Amino acid sequence: MPDSVALPASDRVRLRRGAHLGHYGHDDVLAVLDAGLVAHVGVTTPDGPMVLPTAYGHDGSRLYVHGAVANAALRAAVGHDVCVTVTILDGVIFGRSAFHNSMQYRSAVIRGTARPITDPAEQRRALQLISDHVAASWDSARSAHDAEIRRTMVVAVELLEASVKIRTGGPMDEPEDVDGPHWGGHVPIRTTFGHLEPSPDLPDGIAAPCSIAALAGSDVHPRGPRPGRG
Amino acid sequence: MPDSVALPASDRVRLRRGAHLGHYGHDDVLAVLDAGLVAHVGVTTPDGPMVLPTAYGHDGSRLYVHGAVANAALRAAVGHDVCVTVTILDGVIFGRSAFHNSMQYRSAVIRGTARPITDPAEQRRALQLISDHVAASWDSARSAHDAEIRRTMVVAVELLEASVKIRTGGPMDEPEDVDGPHWGGHVPIRTTFGHLEPSPDLPDGIAAPCSIAALAGSDVHPRGPRPGRG
Repeated sequence: MPDSVALPASDRVRLRRGAHLGHYGHDDVLAVLDAGLVAHVGVTTPDGPMVLPTAYGHDGSRLYVHGAVANAALRAAVGHDVCVTVTILDGVIFGRSAFHNSMQYRSAVIRGTARPITDPAEQRRALQLISDHVAASWDSARSAHDAEIRRTMVVAVELLEASVKIRTGGPMDEPEDVDGPHWGGHVPIRTTFGHLEPSPDLPDGIAAPCSIAALAGSDVHPRGPRPGRG
Repeated sequence: MPDSVALPASDRVRLRRGAHLGHYGHDDVLAVLDAGLVAHVGVTTPDGPMVLPTAYGHDGSRLYVHGAVANAALRAAVGHDVCVTVTILDGVIFGRSAFHNSMQYRSAVIRGTARPITDPAEQRRALQLISDHVAASWDSARSAHDAEIRRTMVVAVELLEASVKIRTGGPMDEPEDVDGPHWGGHVPIRTTFGHLEPSPDLPDGIAAPCSIAALAGSDVHPRGPRPGRG
């Protein structure tokens, strides 16, 4: 079935508001995950809901997030339902009426159970996916010590129940406002990587890996592949 | 008490991990809210936690978010605990070891009860704050009809229980890695507004309000006031 007519995998990820902006294809979900850098993970705690920003990676069928073994929010998530939301802001929209102000965005909402990764090989592979999501850097970095791996908790969420919402274009103004005296339109937003800033204590003569060097000046949230992505 | 030594308002917003990056001053919270444009609101639903991106505004003591009256997630939040997280990504950090990869960011986490705004005057004022948070545009737009206000639900969260986490600088590499052959450093991220794109059906001769025109080329997430901010 082509992605453009894919149906929601469950009722809890079916869009109610702005349903015409919704997409449920697996490729639609992966496109947003590939373009984003930060996920907001929602967990239910005894103190109420908690939402924390975090890096992530994916292998096409599972999304991975990581944290210190001592991370209380991540520990609370293990074995429970979580919601992982990735949002990219592409612009701001001003209507003739403020009621039609909006934003241009791409967002993915993934719901599922946070499964702890305990197999050392899968854990190492997940950490590489998270690391390389920003730019392929795992293989060019100093090899991870086993102690570093042990101090890191990784949880996975299957990419089975997900929805994507994409808003492009300008305001949807009322017909009677179109010929009025008020301005309407949008202002695009662009997010770019700047120049590399080597650590002050970096010895002379050590160049950045090509994948990291390729980030400079590129789009952080591209609609195609990121230059430095592994 | 100066903000730099402010204490967490409650245990549930006290930072456990990276406590040295934490700030609890009211001004610290407002600085992140002023610099951000999108909040991720976490609510607990019968189907598990849900995290949705949304625009927001604040008046210095209350944060406001809005949605259609028919918005199920927002309706579910009313009267219940929510978590509102605003995150700004300022850069990516590459350590000599991938274990020390990180990100530069500013984030605020606010926990509290979502209170419905039913007073028409406060509702209108809250909608202006949300609208003007991006750029002062409420007064220059067509006046909001009462029917538009009625179709919009506004909820408020008191800015009483909040924490801020700010990460700047480069990787915190292991001392034994510093003289090694691996690169370490960071790549800053800059998010900017582009040129104004008027709606295709905008009549000739209608100029954008100065506050919107001032956005073009400016920082989306400034450390000081945004040019177009009301």
